[in-house]
Amino acid sequence: MAVYTDVPDDELRTFLADYALGEPVSCKGIAEGVENSNYLLRTERGTYILTLYEKRVDPAELPFFLALMDHLAKKGIDCPTPVHARDGKALRHLCGRPAAIVRFLDGMWPRRIEAHHCAGIGAALAGLHGAVADFSGTRPNSLSLAGWRQLYESCRDRADEIQIGLSDEIGQELAALEKEWPQDLPRGVIHADLFPDNVFFRGESVSGLIDFYFACTDFYAYDVAICLNAWCFEADGSFNVTKAKLLLNNYRAGRSLNEAEFAALPILARGSALRFLLTRLYDRLNHPPGAMVKPKDPLEYLAKLRFHRGVTQSSAYGFDP
Amino acid sequence: MAVYTDVPDDELRTFLADYALGEPVSCKGIAEGVENSNYLLRTERGTYILTLYEKRVDPAELPFFLALMDHLAKKGIDCPTPVHARDGKALRHLCGRPAAIVRFLDGMWPRRIEAHHCAGIGAALAGLHGAVADFSGTRPNSLSLAGWRQLYESCRDRADEIQIGLSDEIGQELAALEKEWPQDLPRGVIHADLFPDNVFFRGESVSGLIDFYFACTDFYAYDVAICLNAWCFEADGSFNVTKAKLLLNNYRAGRSLNEAEFAALPILARGSALRFLLTRLYDRLNHPPGAMVKPKDPLEYLAKLRFHRGVTQSSAYGFDP
Repeated sequence: MAVYTDVPDDELRTFLADYALGEPVSCKGIAEGVENSNYLLRTERGTYILTLYEKRVDPAELPFFLALMDHLAKKGIDCPTPVHARDGKALRHLCGRPAAIVRFLDGMWPRRIEAHHCAGIGAALAGLHGAVADFSGTRPNSLSLAGWRQLYESCRDRADEIQIGLSDEIGQELAALEKEWPQDLPRGVIHADLFPDNVFFRGESVSGLIDFYFACTDFYAYDVAICLNAWCFEADGSFNVTKAKLLLNNYRAGRSLNEAEFAALPILARGSALRFLLTRLYDRLNHPPGAMVKPKDPLEYLAKLRFHRGVTQSSAYGFDP
Repeated sequence: MAVYTDVPDDELRTFLADYALGEPVSCKGIAEGVENSNYLLRTERGTYILTLYEKRVDPAELPFFLALMDHLAKKGIDCPTPVHARDGKALRHLCGRPAAIVRFLDGMWPRRIEAHHCAGIGAALAGLHGAVADFSGTRPNSLSLAGWRQLYESCRDRADEIQIGLSDEIGQELAALEKEWPQDLPRGVIHADLFPDNVFFRGESVSGLIDFYFACTDFYAYDVAICLNAWCFEADGSFNVTKAKLLLNNYRAGRSLNEAEFAALPILARGSALRFLLTRLYDRLNHPPGAMVKPKDPLEYLAKLRFHRGVTQSSAYGFDP
């Protein structure tokens, strides 16, 4: 739920004059994306998403994200393709903010995850990892080990407000991950936030991947672990092996995992669970009272973390080596 | 700013199966309409607005509103035309709420009002009043004299929190209006809330009127008075006679005002100003702290009320008798 900035019609008209998109026909703020203001923009030429980047995005990082989306689009990945203005630039300014227009993607994100969605996301993730192989941009993952430590230090004194013992449990987990975290798995640019609300489907087919604003350079297999957490647990907290196998097998059909990657899945899944546990914990503890966006439940990810801690090897998930 | 209900993709698919609109292609919550949840819906057949009616709308009144929009559309007025399902019904249910689909209207509402907008809205309002002449539905205006009295009684003890003396001033004004309010002007169904955000333009032309959920049976000239208040004051509080004349003259070109209506404009403008002063005052005093929707300034309408109180006859606005 977003839309923080109201775009006056006359400013929009001036802004669009730099593009070859014709006159604006309509422009409506949409309730998608928590970090930015997004508008569904219709012009004489077609339908687009106009994004105004609000404070939480570092403007210095926007060229990386836009270049990534440009690259993916050229590789045939269905993602928001930046629209370049007449001067060739996609990153511009509107209402005092960095702004960009991307092509509109058909599809809806699934509210209830079924097995076929997991098959689709596995294949789409492999396609994404294949497409970034020759992308030259890099961006450090600020939400990996060092970032988790930082988040933990800022939350540790108050974590037990959410659940008694939480601070100690996270501290121990973090210490363990700092020791055991893999060092040399295949890496490249990963999406790093491929939750169901960032994946559009039409029927049973993936029609688009969106929201690349957490994309960063990290292990490809870590992206797989993020998806296992985001797509393969049921509402009651149980791990759905059928979904997980479909996700992994369809991923491997597009990009094979080497032995080290396969073996690292449990620890990567723990790391991924800790990452979302920590950011949700931080958001919950620092949530302005009465704000409209309801913070997500950090304890959902504590349960996932505990589950993965009990998994000694990847075959225990039911995966074929 | 709204969107209170999240519509799951599978429920939407089931809902749409009752229509002849094809499969859903995308559905995005939009930040328009404070009272209801609105979605920009694209299907294989076209683009629509899906509305879920939330608590503040009385379901018993929805057939009136939908019948009105149906009637207006048949008369060629650009307004949200209800889409009827295969069984002929436009009013349905989705996610436990009354729901309807209407055709999407191109255009953007003007953030900065220029003179040509006032000319356009005058003509559009006359067109609307002409089109409802043979509409059989009626709905009492719950926000006329009796409603103002009720609002006043619920706010009078706290009105001075906003401005010292406000309670007395409103009380005196209300008493005066209760004595002087006209009884027998031409009446029919009016829009009653035709503010700039409810009027779409493409270029200089009105392309659509939306949000008929305050429509009710009242004096046509009262609708004109509402528009004079909503469109013809500048941000500094001054009354722009050029805009007002354009609005009124273009209205009269489509529907003439009789002598009594013309003479009543100052009192109707006072009543309209009091109506928005009171609802804004109520919303401000009963605003949940931290809520995302910022309540509008009631004192803007106190200033308008005072202005009209100083106008003894319509010609003093600069209007030609």
